[in-house]
Amino acid sequence: MNVAMVSKNLGTLLIFEILAMFPAMIVSLIYKESAFWAFLYTMIILLIIGLVLFMIKPKSKSIYAREGFAIVAIGWILMSFFGALPFYFSGAIPSLVDSFFESSSGFTTTGASILTEIEGLAKGILFWRSFTHWVGGIGVLVLAMAILPSAGAQSMQMMKAESPGPNPGRLVPKVKETAKILFSIYLLITVIEIILLMFAGMPFYDALVHTFGTVGTGGFSSKNLSIGGYNNIMVEIIITVFMLMCGANFGLYYHALKGNFKVLFKDEEFKLYVTIVTISIIVITLNIYGEVYHTVKESVRYAAFQVASIITTTGYATADFDTWPVFSKLILLFIMFIGGCAGSTGGGMKHIRILLLFKAAKRNFLKIVHPRAVDSVRIGGRAVDEQALSEVLGFFFIYIIIFCCAVLIVALDGKSIVTTLSSVVATIANIGPGLEIVGPAGNFSSFSVLSKITLSFCMIIGRLEIYPILLLVMPKFWSK
Amino acid sequence: MNVAMVSKNLGTLLIFEILAMFPAMIVSLIYKESAFWAFLYTMIILLIIGLVLFMIKPKSKSIYAREGFAIVAIGWILMSFFGALPFYFSGAIPSLVDSFFESSSGFTTTGASILTEIEGLAKGILFWRSFTHWVGGIGVLVLAMAILPSAGAQSMQMMKAESPGPNPGRLVPKVKETAKILFSIYLLITVIEIILLMFAGMPFYDALVHTFGTVGTGGFSSKNLSIGGYNNIMVEIIITVFMLMCGANFGLYYHALKGNFKVLFKDEEFKLYVTIVTISIIVITLNIYGEVYHTVKESVRYAAFQVASIITTTGYATADFDTWPVFSKLILLFIMFIGGCAGSTGGGMKHIRILLLFKAAKRNFLKIVHPRAVDSVRIGGRAVDEQALSEVLGFFFIYIIIFCCAVLIVALDGKSIVTTLSSVVATIANIGPGLEIVGPAGNFSSFSVLSKITLSFCMIIGRLEIYPILLLVMPKFWSK
Repeated sequence: MNVAMVSKNLGTLLIFEILAMFPAMIVSLIYKESAFWAFLYTMIILLIIGLVLFMIKPKSKSIYAREGFAIVAIGWILMSFFGALPFYFSGAIPSLVDSFFESSSGFTTTGASILTEIEGLAKGILFWRSFTHWVGGIGVLVLAMAILPSAGAQSMQMMKAESPGPNPGRLVPKVKETAKILFSIYLLITVIEIILLMFAGMPFYDALVHTFGTVGTGGFSSKNLSIGGYNNIMVEIIITVFMLMCGANFGLYYHALKGNFKVLFKDEEFKLYVTIVTISIIVITLNIYGEVYHTVKESVRYAAFQVASIITTTGYATADFDTWPVFSKLILLFIMFIGGCAGSTGGGMKHIRILLLFKAAKRNFLKIVHPRAVDSVRIGGRAVDEQALSEVLGFFFIYIIIFCCAVLIVALDGKSIVTTLSSVVATIANIGPGLEIVGPAGNFSSFSVLSKITLSFCMIIGRLEIYPILLLVMPKFWSK
Repeated sequence: MNVAMVSKNLGTLLIFEILAMFPAMIVSLIYKESAFWAFLYTMIILLIIGLVLFMIKPKSKSIYAREGFAIVAIGWILMSFFGALPFYFSGAIPSLVDSFFESSSGFTTTGASILTEIEGLAKGILFWRSFTHWVGGIGVLVLAMAILPSAGAQSMQMMKAESPGPNPGRLVPKVKETAKILFSIYLLITVIEIILLMFAGMPFYDALVHTFGTVGTGGFSSKNLSIGGYNNIMVEIIITVFMLMCGANFGLYYHALKGNFKVLFKDEEFKLYVTIVTISIIVITLNIYGEVYHTVKESVRYAAFQVASIITTTGYATADFDTWPVFSKLILLFIMFIGGCAGSTGGGMKHIRILLLFKAAKRNFLKIVHPRAVDSVRIGGRAVDEQALSEVLGFFFIYIIIFCCAVLIVALDGKSIVTTLSSVVATIANIGPGLEIVGPAGNFSSFSVLSKITLSFCMIIGRLEIYPILLLVMPKFWSK
């Protein structure tokens, strides 16, 4: 392990976080809030630690997969930790563990909150809280589409090979190019959503905050009632569309912008995504119509928003789905695990994995009946490498195991089974709200310190798709 | 598909069911119950249909994997259906769907019941109900250890290869031999348990009924309060030990009887099984001590029985674990999915699969760090075939998917999330009781007809480890 190069890169990340904190500080300055000082102090700390780490002289400049994983994993944890300091210093969140929870929730684009009262908080603090979603969102895109594929992460590489996005080959030059393209698309989507939300009647500040939450598929709002607080159907439609956009593979937009719209109809993952979204909206509409809402229009309106919000792992709410019938709640619970598409800002296991798992399972079945017809699993006409397939299957198992372990730790709090299970799904799949105590009308404030730390790490583990964080705790990872 | 040979074999199975029904009829005769006639009518029906099916003349006598699967899948469904008739004809269970549920629950050694009041039922009927466990238990053993391995079921074959049981090669001669050995061991265990239970003070009839429920890891009792109704610690200890024995691979006993005791300490699956049982008992004891029970002795007593009952998928109860703390309930819920060992009468996913999944996941992790060290996964020192591994991984995914689908169907009943989820685990993993409405103090009577049929099929799907039943509904299975 080239510790010096890891430190150097972590230093760069922390210095970058200073830049990320700038807009929020400006907001605090404009609104003449004392939170301004909280940002300033944090920036000074970041500068000192960042420079110290950056100045370490490496003997060799080479970075391999291991170093890449270490930078990503430790980097996400450090950014979350230092990102928590403004909440803590400003007094907005009096506990450091709570501040870390909120900040991890931001950077991992989860949107789970320990805050019970949001609207009274300083504008600068709420801006920072939502802006971490935006930073986390572009971070995940660059990580999944540019860095990991070239760092040799097999399962990611496989996804990359199958996704139609800009295809990076070797490390440095192409990574930068890919990152630039992704950033441009991300920025474009952001600007368009801000403008549309303002046209729909949202104040500029609110439009910024909710756009950050949407494009990062995060879900932090500046309203206690989330998007439901606006009761504006135009706002709901805009956010539904943008959530769904950001839950899809950004590589598709690259092709679409180049005029190749066909790719949208050919991409198998995208088709599965559209299918699952459509079916979920239809069955939930049928289930809640008559039982919760009196008109079809209302039922579709609330079903569509909540499905889009959950499957893209955003977590905004316009209705308290915890009061919906069990069938609808279970549909939402299951699509929480699926999450967005590969190469999106969404969390969860990703549609491409579910697609591959289904195809692999079907192939296995057919083999029993026709043992000699050994077909390879195909996505988009191309055969998927057997090893990549085995990794996806293994990923599914490890995901479930980590879920179960986290559930048992959180269960020590003695909350109900549904609260316990859903709090872990809501964090590991980077959604935000779960059911009961952690439902759309609730929050995570009542958990113990142990549970809050566990759930914070669930968010980070889920966001980084398990491997980087789990590798950190394996002794073999650090050995020569 | 050689339909004639399938029919012929199904006919044999039905005629065999007449023999299986004999002891119960005798019991009804001894107690002078009108249920005698219910058995007699069912036997006549079985004889007619059985003979008709048996008399079909096949053009060819060859049976391949497909025919084997069809016989097993349809056979289990038919046995459950005709096994339900005595319940229905005798009036013990007035609904045919309920009778089918109870009978499937028996033959699949599940032990889930729709009965609200057990103690008032005819002795012959309760005998038959429990005897189906015993028949189902030996059926599963012969199926998993003798028939499937030679019928070319890959994942089973793999397990066979790794388990130390008598190793069958080709179809006919060895299958019979293996089946004989298994039957002898099964009978020996049965006789010993009956004698021990009588020594502990149980009446002969009760000892029979509860031995059937134990060795088949079924769980039907003749008491409303299950084993708790005896409040006899000797009975509890005997049943705990025998449940655990029957949740382990019967191949081990074959070796142990031949004097090779070392195999118990070498078998990796057995070691995992012992480890999980021990850890579960310890953590549940710690969790319930002070909170539910006042002495350590009491806590261990109830923790040990309930853990043994759940992990072996028996389902007997001496305590209402639904009133235990969430942590303990979730431990029980998770070990429900694991179930027993391969080659046991227990249900669930089996320890060998969990072991393989862990090993495969670990290997995948190490590959990321050391891509060139392509180790194969090993069990008992031998490398596991990559294809078998991929099948186990696929099995895990399909298991979860079928679980989710069943949950959504049962969710239409509008019962709570915990009831819905646990009713499906309790049936697909062949346990019996779940939580809340279907907890140890509850039953499955309040579900809709659709849910009862779904749960009945969950039992059969789980019992046959998915493939045979799922293949039945695949068009390619029937095509040439």
